[in-house]
Amino acid sequence: MLKQEDFELDDPTYILRPVGRVESPLTDRDDAPKQGDEGASLARIVFLSEFREAVRDLRRGEEVPVLTWLHQGRRDVLSVHPRGDTNRPRAGVFATRAPDRPNPIGLHAVRIDNVEESAITVHNLEGIYGTPVLDIKPVLGRVHNR
Amino acid sequence: MLKQEDFELDDPTYILRPVGRVESPLTDRDDAPKQGDEGASLARIVFLSEFREAVRDLRRGEEVPVLTWLHQGRRDVLSVHPRGDTNRPRAGVFATRAPDRPNPIGLHAVRIDNVEESAITVHNLEGIYGTPVLDIKPVLGRVHNR
Repeated sequence: MLKQEDFELDDPTYILRPVGRVESPLTDRDDAPKQGDEGASLARIVFLSEFREAVRDLRRGEEVPVLTWLHQGRRDVLSVHPRGDTNRPRAGVFATRAPDRPNPIGLHAVRIDNVEESAITVHNLEGIYGTPVLDIKPVLGRVHNR
Repeated sequence: MLKQEDFELDDPTYILRPVGRVESPLTDRDDAPKQGDEGASLARIVFLSEFREAVRDLRRGEEVPVLTWLHQGRRDVLSVHPRGDTNRPRAGVFATRAPDRPNPIGLHAVRIDNVEESAITVHNLEGIYGTPVLDIKPVLGRVHNR
């Protein structure tokens, strides 16, 4: 059985290297909609050229989760008032989607509008300009279609 | 407009620090089911004690995405045969869920079975024993319930 002491003794870290960035009209965190389906316009994900091979089988019309690094997030925050509303009680960040959290990874359900050689244009990505992109991972369909 | 040269000149990295680990009966990547709904048994996520506050509002019965670090993933792989089947053509990794990818982040849709002070027991987490856990992020309901 894992004990908490096991962690304290062995506390590794891992290095993320962005594979691309978000190009969007949003430049300020305070102007961004709280979620991608609350008014985000089209955004483009521009990939580093070396990752072109990883991009090549994405298709227009697909809905895919995109993982980003919320580089303006505060990593020392463990509870927040949901949606910044101080009338609501504080909630532990793992029960919220607040950008302030220990590992500020953004999870966005986007729909692909267009695919270029090393870029895609997507709907429903609320990221601000320059947000680092970490990964794109399709959601699975039914088992027999995999 | 973002140009690829913008990236080459400014190529930052980010440090992930796990918030916990997976405790599961799986010890070998080759024994793990390909996806969490293909036969994974109950698993437990044990959090570092300092993150207890972030965990406290998770509830039994909730379905939440869990992000892990697939620490055995190869980061130099950009295309794979889906499900390791060499009869299928190679696909760019962003169109697959292969654990080998530039930033090997696992995305698992789990259902919470039990909540302790700094641990949760979950269904449908196919991670092997010791897999680092990065984040837990609820999926949103309808806009008016947020």
